[in-house]
Amino acid sequence: MRYAPHPKLEFWFEFASTYSYVAAGRIEGLARAAGVEIVWKPFLLGPIFAKEGWTDSPFNLYPAKGAHMWRDMERLCGRYSLPFRRPSVFPRNSVRAARVALVGAHAPWGPGFVQAVYRANFGDDVDTGDPEVLVALLDKQGVDGREVLAQAESPEWKPRLREQTERAESLGIFGAPSFLVGSELFWGSDRLEQAVEFAQRPAPPSP
Amino acid sequence: MRYAPHPKLEFWFEFASTYSYVAAGRIEGLARAAGVEIVWKPFLLGPIFAKEGWTDSPFNLYPAKGAHMWRDMERLCGRYSLPFRRPSVFPRNSVRAARVALVGAHAPWGPGFVQAVYRANFGDDVDTGDPEVLVALLDKQGVDGREVLAQAESPEWKPRLREQTERAESLGIFGAPSFLVGSELFWGSDRLEQAVEFAQRPAPPSP
Repeated sequence: MRYAPHPKLEFWFEFASTYSYVAAGRIEGLARAAGVEIVWKPFLLGPIFAKEGWTDSPFNLYPAKGAHMWRDMERLCGRYSLPFRRPSVFPRNSVRAARVALVGAHAPWGPGFVQAVYRANFGDDVDTGDPEVLVALLDKQGVDGREVLAQAESPEWKPRLREQTERAESLGIFGAPSFLVGSELFWGSDRLEQAVEFAQRPAPPSP
Repeated sequence: MRYAPHPKLEFWFEFASTYSYVAAGRIEGLARAAGVEIVWKPFLLGPIFAKEGWTDSPFNLYPAKGAHMWRDMERLCGRYSLPFRRPSVFPRNSVRAARVALVGAHAPWGPGFVQAVYRANFGDDVDTGDPEVLVALLDKQGVDGREVLAQAESPEWKPRLREQTERAESLGIFGAPSFLVGSELFWGSDRLEQAVEFAQRPAPPSP
Protein backbone atom coordinates (compact mmCIF):
# COMPACT_ATOMS: atom_id res chain seq x y z
CA MET A 1 0.00 0.00 0.00
CA ARG A 2 1.22 3.46 -0.86
CA TYR A 3 0.32 6.34 1.40
CA ALA A 4 0.24 9.92 0.18
CA PRO A 5 3.36 11.55 1.57
CA HIS A 6 1.62 14.41 3.38
CA PRO A 7 -2.07 13.76 3.94
CA LYS A 8 -3.80 17.07 4.63
CA LEU A 9 -6.85 17.90 6.64
CA GLU A 10 -8.46 21.33 6.29
CA PHE A 11 -9.88 22.49 9.62
CA TRP A 12 -12.60 25.08 9.00
CA PHE A 13 -13.36 26.82 12.26
CA GLU A 14 -15.34 29.78 13.60
CA PHE A 15 -14.14 31.37 16.83
CA ALA A 16 -17.68 31.91 18.10
CA SER A 17 -18.56 28.22 17.68
CA THR A 18 -18.66 26.09 20.81
CA TYR A 19 -18.07 22.81 19.00
CA SER A 20 -15.17 24.35 17.07
CA TYR A 21 -13.57 24.90 20.49
CA VAL A 22 -13.93 21.20 21.27
CA ALA A 23 -12.47 20.28 17.87
CA ALA A 24 -9.59 22.74 18.25
CA GLY A 25 -8.76 21.22 21.61
CA ARG A 26 -8.59 17.73 20.12
CA ILE A 27 -7.27 18.15 16.58
CA GLU A 28 -3.56 18.67 17.15
CA GLY A 29 -3.08 15.51 19.20
CA LEU A 30 -5.13 13.39 16.81
CA ALA A 31 -3.46 14.77 13.69
CA ARG A 32 0.02 14.36 15.15
CA ALA A 33 -0.65 10.75 16.13
CA ALA A 34 -1.96 10.02 12.63
CA GLY A 35 0.77 11.87 10.74
CA VAL A 36 -1.77 14.19 9.18
CA GLU A 37 -1.07 17.85 8.46
CA ILE A 38 -3.65 20.40 9.61
CA VAL A 39 -4.46 23.31 7.31
CA TRP A 40 -6.01 26.04 9.48
CA LYS A 41 -9.03 27.69 7.87
CA PRO A 42 -10.70 30.41 9.93
CA PHE A 43 -13.98 31.65 8.50
CA LEU A 44 -17.22 33.33 9.56
CA LEU A 45 -20.53 31.57 9.98
CA GLY A 46 -22.47 34.83 10.28
CA PRO A 47 -22.72 35.60 6.55
CA ILE A 48 -23.63 31.96 5.80
CA PHE A 49 -26.30 31.87 8.53
CA ALA A 50 -27.64 35.25 7.38
CA LYS A 51 -28.45 33.73 3.97
CA GLU A 52 -30.55 31.09 5.79
CA GLY A 53 -32.42 33.93 7.47
CA TRP A 54 -30.70 33.48 10.84
CA THR A 55 -29.55 36.70 12.45
CA ASP A 56 -28.31 35.01 15.62
CA SER A 57 -26.81 31.66 16.59
CA PRO A 58 -29.29 28.81 16.09
CA PHE A 59 -28.50 27.94 19.72
CA ASN A 60 -30.04 31.25 20.75
CA LEU A 61 -32.85 31.10 18.20
CA TYR A 62 -33.92 27.59 19.29
CA PRO A 63 -33.81 27.49 23.10
CA ALA A 64 -34.23 23.70 23.50
CA LYS A 65 -31.33 23.14 21.12
CA GLY A 66 -29.31 25.72 23.01
CA ALA A 67 -30.04 24.16 26.41
CA HIS A 68 -28.85 20.78 25.16
CA MET A 69 -25.73 22.28 23.59
CA TRP A 70 -24.57 23.94 26.83
CA ARG A 71 -25.06 20.75 28.81
CA ASP A 72 -23.38 18.78 26.04
CA MET A 73 -20.42 21.17 26.17
CA GLU A 74 -20.02 20.55 29.90
CA ARG A 75 -20.05 16.80 29.31
CA LEU A 76 -17.70 16.91 26.30
CA CYS A 77 -15.20 19.29 27.89
CA GLY A 78 -15.16 17.07 30.97
CA ARG A 79 -14.58 14.05 28.80
CA TYR A 80 -11.75 15.68 26.85
CA SER A 81 -10.26 17.55 29.83
CA LEU A 82 -10.83 20.96 28.26
CA PRO A 83 -11.46 23.91 30.57
CA PHE A 84 -15.01 25.18 30.19
CA ARG A 85 -16.92 28.13 31.55
CA ARG A 86 -20.09 29.20 29.82
CA PRO A 87 -19.32 32.59 28.24
CA SER A 88 -21.38 35.48 29.59
CA VAL A 89 -21.79 36.69 25.99
CA PHE A 90 -22.65 34.25 23.21
CA PRO A 91 -21.82 34.34 20.42
CA ARG A 92 -18.81 36.63 20.84
CA ASN A 93 -17.76 38.81 17.95
CA SER A 94 -15.20 36.73 16.09
CA VAL A 95 -14.36 38.89 13.08
CA ARG A 96 -11.14 40.42 14.37
CA ALA A 97 -9.80 37.17 15.83
CA ALA A 98 -10.55 35.39 12.53
CA ARG A 99 -8.71 38.07 10.55
CA VAL A 100 -5.67 37.60 12.79
CA ALA A 101 -5.88 33.81 12.51
CA LEU A 102 -5.87 34.17 8.74
CA VAL A 103 -2.61 36.13 8.92
CA GLY A 104 -1.19 33.38 11.13
CA ALA A 105 -2.62 30.42 9.22
CA HIS A 106 0.81 29.39 7.90
CA ALA A 107 2.93 31.00 10.61
CA PRO A 108 4.51 29.12 13.53
CA TRP A 109 2.49 31.18 16.03
CA GLY A 110 -0.86 30.50 14.28
CA PRO A 111 -2.03 27.33 16.05
CA GLY A 112 -1.00 28.69 19.45
CA PHE A 113 -3.00 31.85 18.84
CA VAL A 114 -6.08 29.87 17.76
CA GLN A 115 -5.92 27.75 20.91
CA ALA A 116 -5.39 30.81 23.10
CA VAL A 117 -8.44 32.60 21.67
CA TYR A 118 -10.65 29.54 22.19
CA ARG A 119 -9.44 29.01 25.76
CA ALA A 120 -9.96 32.69 26.60
CA ASN A 121 -13.53 32.70 25.26
CA PHE A 122 -14.78 29.29 26.39
CA GLY A 123 -12.43 28.51 29.28
CA ASP A 124 -12.04 31.92 30.94
CA ASP A 125 -15.03 33.96 29.70
CA VAL A 126 -12.78 36.69 28.29
CA ASP A 127 -14.07 39.04 25.58
CA THR A 128 -12.11 37.86 22.56
CA GLY A 129 -13.81 40.47 20.42
CA ASP A 130 -11.75 43.13 22.24
CA PRO A 131 -8.65 44.13 20.18
CA GLU A 132 -6.59 44.66 23.35
CA VAL A 133 -7.29 41.07 24.40
CA LEU A 134 -6.11 39.85 21.01
CA VAL A 135 -2.95 41.95 21.20
CA ALA A 136 -2.14 40.45 24.60
CA LEU A 137 -2.78 36.89 23.34
CA LEU A 138 -0.55 37.55 20.33
CA ASP A 139 2.22 39.00 22.50
CA LYS A 140 2.17 35.76 24.48
CA GLN A 141 2.83 33.87 21.25
CA GLY A 142 6.09 35.79 20.93
CA VAL A 143 5.03 38.14 18.13
CA ASP A 144 4.34 41.86 18.20
CA GLY A 145 0.60 41.81 18.80
CA ARG A 146 -0.07 45.37 17.79
CA GLU A 147 1.82 44.90 14.53
CA VAL A 148 0.05 41.66 13.64
CA LEU A 149 -3.36 43.17 14.42
CA ALA A 150 -2.57 46.17 12.21
CA GLN A 151 -1.58 43.79 9.42
CA ALA A 152 -4.79 41.78 9.86
CA GLU A 153 -6.88 44.92 9.48
CA SER A 154 -4.86 46.37 6.61
CA PRO A 155 -6.51 46.94 3.22
CA GLU A 156 -4.42 44.06 1.86
CA TRP A 157 -5.52 41.46 4.43
CA LYS A 158 -8.95 42.61 5.55
CA PRO A 159 -10.85 41.36 2.45
CA ARG A 160 -9.30 37.90 2.66
CA LEU A 161 -11.59 36.73 5.43
CA ARG A 162 -14.63 37.52 3.31
CA GLU A 163 -13.03 35.62 0.42
CA GLN A 164 -12.29 32.65 2.68
CA THR A 165 -15.89 32.66 3.94
CA GLU A 166 -17.18 32.73 0.36
CA ARG A 167 -14.85 29.85 -0.39
CA ALA A 168 -16.30 27.91 2.57
CA GLU A 169 -19.79 28.41 1.24
CA SER A 170 -18.78 27.33 -2.27
CA LEU A 171 -17.34 24.13 -0.76
CA GLY A 172 -20.71 23.27 0.75
CA ILE A 173 -19.73 24.26 4.29
CA PHE A 174 -22.79 25.23 6.33
CA GLY A 175 -21.58 24.91 9.93
CA ALA A 176 -18.50 24.73 12.10
CA PRO A 177 -16.31 22.96 12.72
CA SER A 178 -16.00 21.35 9.30
CA PHE A 179 -13.20 19.17 8.03
CA LEU A 180 -12.27 18.81 4.42
CA VAL A 181 -10.07 16.07 2.96
CA GLY A 182 -9.87 16.56 -0.79
CA SER A 183 -13.52 17.05 -1.63
CA GLU A 184 -14.79 14.93 1.27
CA LEU A 185 -16.63 17.08 3.80
CA PHE A 186 -17.16 16.19 7.45
CA TRP A 187 -19.26 18.40 9.70
CA GLY A 188 -18.98 18.59 13.47
CA SER A 189 -16.42 17.84 16.15
CA ASP A 190 -17.91 14.34 16.33
CA ARG A 191 -16.56 13.63 12.84
CA LEU A 192 -12.98 14.61 13.59
CA GLU A 193 -11.74 11.04 14.07
CA GLN A 194 -13.38 9.92 10.82
CA ALA A 195 -11.90 12.86 8.92
CA VAL A 196 -8.41 12.12 10.25
CA GLU A 197 -8.85 8.47 9.33
CA PHE A 198 -10.05 9.44 5.86
CA ALA A 199 -6.97 11.65 5.39
CA GLN A 200 -4.78 8.63 6.14
CA ARG A 201 -6.28 6.50 3.37
CA PRO A 202 -3.94 5.09 0.76
CA ALA A 203 -3.57 7.37 -2.23
CA PRO A 204 -5.23 5.99 -5.37
CA PRO A 205 -2.67 4.30 -7.65
CA SER A 206 -1.12 6.55 -10.29
CA PRO A 207 -2.65 6.03 -13.74
CA MET B 1 -19.90 0.78 44.26
CA ARG B 2 -23.58 0.13 43.99
CA TYR B 3 -25.20 0.01 40.59
CA ALA B 4 -28.89 0.66 40.04
CA PRO B 5 -30.45 -2.76 39.41
CA HIS B 6 -32.04 -1.91 36.04
CA PRO B 7 -30.56 1.16 34.46
CA LYS B 8 -32.95 2.46 31.83
CA LEU B 9 -32.36 4.39 28.66
CA GLU B 10 -35.27 6.04 26.88
CA PHE B 11 -34.81 5.94 23.13
CA TRP B 12 -36.87 8.71 21.52
CA PHE B 13 -37.05 8.03 17.80
CA GLU B 14 -38.83 9.31 14.70
CA PHE B 15 -39.28 6.88 11.81
CA ALA B 16 -38.61 9.57 9.19
CA SER B 17 -35.27 10.47 10.78
CA THR B 18 -32.14 9.19 9.07
CA TYR B 19 -29.96 9.37 12.17
CA SER B 20 -32.66 7.59 14.19
CA TYR B 21 -32.17 4.71 11.75
CA VAL B 22 -28.46 4.63 12.56
CA ALA B 23 -29.20 4.74 16.29
CA ALA B 24 -31.84 2.01 16.03
CA GLY B 25 -29.35 -0.20 14.21
CA ARG B 26 -26.78 0.21 16.99
CA ILE B 27 -28.74 0.55 20.20
CA GLU B 28 -29.72 -3.05 20.92
CA GLY B 29 -26.17 -4.41 20.78
CA LEU B 30 -24.76 -1.57 22.86
CA ALA B 31 -27.51 -1.74 25.48
CA ARG B 32 -27.26 -5.51 25.77
CA ALA B 33 -23.49 -5.39 26.25
CA ALA B 34 -23.91 -2.72 28.93
CA GLY B 35 -26.82 -4.36 30.72
CA VAL B 36 -29.03 -1.35 30.07
CA GLU B 37 -32.75 -1.63 29.38
CA ILE B 38 -34.12 0.27 26.38
CA VAL B 39 -37.47 2.03 26.73
CA TRP B 40 -38.82 2.56 23.21
CA LYS B 41 -40.33 6.00 22.71
CA PRO B 42 -41.67 6.69 19.21
CA PHE B 43 -42.72 10.29 18.62
CA LEU B 44 -43.21 12.79 15.81
CA LEU B 45 -40.83 15.58 14.95
CA GLY B 46 -43.28 17.27 12.58
CA PRO B 47 -45.32 19.08 15.24
CA ILE B 48 -42.13 20.16 17.05
CA PHE B 49 -40.52 21.42 13.84
CA ALA B 50 -43.74 23.19 12.84
CA LYS B 51 -43.48 25.33 15.97
CA GLU B 52 -40.01 26.42 14.81
CA GLY B 53 -41.57 27.46 11.52
CA TRP B 54 -40.24 24.47 9.57
CA THR B 55 -42.77 22.79 7.33
CA ASP B 56 -40.29 20.30 5.90
CA SER B 57 -37.19 18.46 7.08
CA PRO B 58 -34.31 20.87 7.78
CA PHE B 59 -32.30 18.61 5.46
CA ASN B 60 -34.61 19.63 2.63
CA LEU B 61 -34.90 23.26 3.72
CA TYR B 62 -31.11 23.69 3.91
CA PRO B 63 -29.60 21.95 0.86
CA ALA B 64 -25.95 22.11 1.97
CA LYS B 65 -26.89 20.50 5.27
CA GLY B 66 -28.90 17.89 3.38
CA ALA B 67 -26.06 17.08 0.97
CA HIS B 68 -23.71 16.48 3.88
CA MET B 69 -26.27 14.34 5.72
CA TRP B 70 -26.77 11.95 2.79
CA ARG B 71 -23.03 11.51 2.32
CA ASP B 72 -22.63 11.12 6.07
CA MET B 73 -25.33 8.42 6.06
CA GLU B 74 -23.41 6.48 3.40
CA ARG B 75 -20.26 6.69 5.47
CA LEU B 76 -21.95 5.84 8.79
CA CYS B 77 -23.98 2.94 7.43
CA GLY B 78 -20.81 1.57 5.83
CA ARG B 79 -18.99 1.91 9.15
CA TYR B 80 -21.77 0.20 11.12
CA SER B 81 -22.64 -2.38 8.45
CA LEU B 82 -26.20 -1.13 8.08
CA PRO B 83 -27.86 -1.51 4.69
CA PHE B 84 -28.46 1.90 3.12
CA ARG B 85 -30.27 3.08 0.02
CA ARG B 86 -31.27 6.73 -0.18
CA PRO B 87 -35.08 6.76 -0.05
CA SER B 88 -36.78 8.09 -3.16
CA VAL B 89 -39.16 10.01 -0.88
CA PHE B 90 -37.83 11.94 2.11
CA PRO B 91 -39.14 12.39 4.69
CA ARG B 92 -41.64 9.53 4.53
CA ASN B 93 -44.90 9.83 6.38
CA SER B 94 -44.21 8.26 9.73
CA VAL B 95 -47.48 8.83 11.63
CA ARG B 96 -48.98 5.38 11.13
CA ALA B 97 -45.77 3.49 11.82
CA ALA B 98 -45.26 5.52 15.00
CA ARG B 99 -48.78 4.77 16.19
CA VAL B 100 -48.11 1.05 15.70
CA ALA B 101 -44.73 1.29 17.46
CA LEU B 102 -46.49 2.89 20.41
CA VAL B 103 -48.82 -0.10 20.66
CA GLY B 104 -45.78 -2.38 20.55
CA ALA B 105 -43.55 -0.33 22.84
CA HIS B 106 -43.78 -2.88 25.65
CA ALA B 107 -44.63 -5.92 23.54
CA PRO B 108 -42.13 -8.62 22.54
CA TRP B 109 -42.67 -7.82 18.85
CA GLY B 110 -42.05 -4.07 19.30
CA PRO B 111 -38.29 -3.81 18.76
CA GLY B 112 -38.43 -6.17 15.76
CA PHE B 113 -41.13 -4.03 14.18
CA VAL B 114 -39.15 -0.82 14.74
CA GLN B 115 -36.07 -2.33 13.11
CA ALA B 116 -38.12 -3.70 10.21
CA VAL B 117 -39.68 -0.30 9.46
CA TYR B 118 -36.29 1.43 9.50
CA ARG B 119 -34.71 -1.20 7.25
CA ALA B 120 -37.61 -1.01 4.81
CA ASN B 121 -37.43 2.78 4.55
CA PHE B 122 -33.66 3.36 4.58
CA GLY B 123 -32.34 0.00 3.42
CA ASP B 124 -34.86 -0.98 0.77
CA ASP B 125 -36.60 2.28 -0.21
CA VAL B 126 -40.03 0.89 0.63
CA ASP B 127 -42.94 3.24 1.39
CA THR B 128 -43.40 2.73 5.10
CA GLY B 129 -46.25 5.23 5.11
CA ASP B 130 -48.37 2.62 3.29
CA PRO B 131 -50.63 0.72 5.73
CA GLU B 132 -50.34 -2.49 3.66
CA VAL B 133 -46.56 -2.36 4.06
CA LEU B 134 -46.97 -2.00 7.82
CA VAL B 135 -49.42 -4.92 7.96
CA ALA B 136 -46.91 -7.10 6.12
CA LEU B 137 -44.06 -6.05 8.41
CA LEU B 138 -46.22 -6.79 11.45
CA ASP B 139 -47.23 -10.19 10.11
CA LYS B 140 -43.54 -11.04 9.85
CA GLN B 141 -43.19 -10.29 13.56
CA GLY B 142 -45.65 -13.08 14.24
CA VAL B 143 -48.64 -10.91 15.12
CA ASP B 144 -51.87 -10.24 13.24
CA GLY B 145 -50.85 -7.11 11.35
CA ARG B 146 -54.34 -6.01 10.43
CA GLU B 147 -55.52 -6.33 14.00
CA VAL B 148 -52.57 -4.41 15.45
CA LEU B 149 -52.98 -1.65 12.87
CA ALA B 150 -56.67 -1.36 13.74
CA GLN B 151 -55.78 -1.10 17.40
CA ALA B 152 -53.16 1.57 16.68
CA GLU B 153 -55.75 3.68 14.86
CA SER B 154 -58.52 3.10 17.38
CA PRO B 155 -59.99 6.04 19.31
CA GLU B 156 -58.32 4.70 22.43
CA TRP B 157 -54.79 4.54 21.01
CA LYS B 158 -54.72 7.21 18.31
CA PRO B 159 -54.39 10.20 20.67
CA ARG B 160 -51.49 8.65 22.54
CA LEU B 161 -48.93 9.51 19.89
CA ARG B 162 -49.85 13.18 20.15
CA GLU B 163 -49.54 12.94 23.92
CA GLN B 164 -46.15 11.26 23.60
CA THR B 165 -44.99 13.97 21.21
CA GLU B 166 -46.15 16.66 23.65
CA ARG B 167 -44.28 14.83 26.37
CA ALA B 168 -41.14 14.84 24.20
CA GLU B 169 -41.39 18.57 23.76
CA SER B 170 -41.93 19.13 27.48
CA LEU B 171 -38.76 17.12 28.14
CA GLY B 172 -36.76 19.52 25.98
CA ILE B 173 -36.50 17.14 23.04
CA PHE B 174 -36.01 19.06 19.78
CA GLY B 175 -34.62 16.43 17.42
CA ALA B 176 -34.24 12.72 16.87
CA PRO B 177 -32.83 10.45 17.95
CA SER B 178 -32.71 11.58 21.56
CA PHE B 179 -31.74 9.55 24.59
CA LEU B 180 -32.95 10.26 28.07
CA VAL B 181 -31.47 8.82 31.25
CA GLY B 182 -33.35 10.23 34.21
CA SER B 183 -33.42 13.91 33.30
CA GLU B 184 -30.17 13.80 31.35
CA LEU B 185 -30.78 14.42 27.65
CA PHE B 186 -28.49 13.33 24.82
CA TRP B 187 -29.25 14.31 21.25
CA GLY B 188 -28.04 12.47 18.17
CA SER B 189 -26.86 8.99 17.26
CA ASP B 190 -23.32 10.21 18.01
CA ARG B 191 -24.25 10.47 21.69
CA LEU B 192 -25.57 6.92 22.03
CA GLU B 193 -22.40 5.54 23.61
CA GLN B 194 -22.28 8.38 26.14
CA ALA B 195 -25.94 7.90 27.01
CA VAL B 196 -25.46 4.16 27.56
CA GLU B 197 -22.40 4.88 29.70
CA PHE B 198 -24.37 7.46 31.67
CA ALA B 199 -27.13 4.91 32.31
CA GLN B 200 -24.54 2.57 33.80
CA ARG B 201 -23.34 5.09 36.38
CA PRO B 202 -23.46 4.09 40.01
CA ALA B 203 -26.73 5.09 41.65
CA PRO B 204 -26.35 7.92 44.14
CA PRO B 205 -26.17 6.57 47.69
CA SER B 206 -29.48 6.33 49.51
CA PRO B 207 -30.00 9.20 51.94
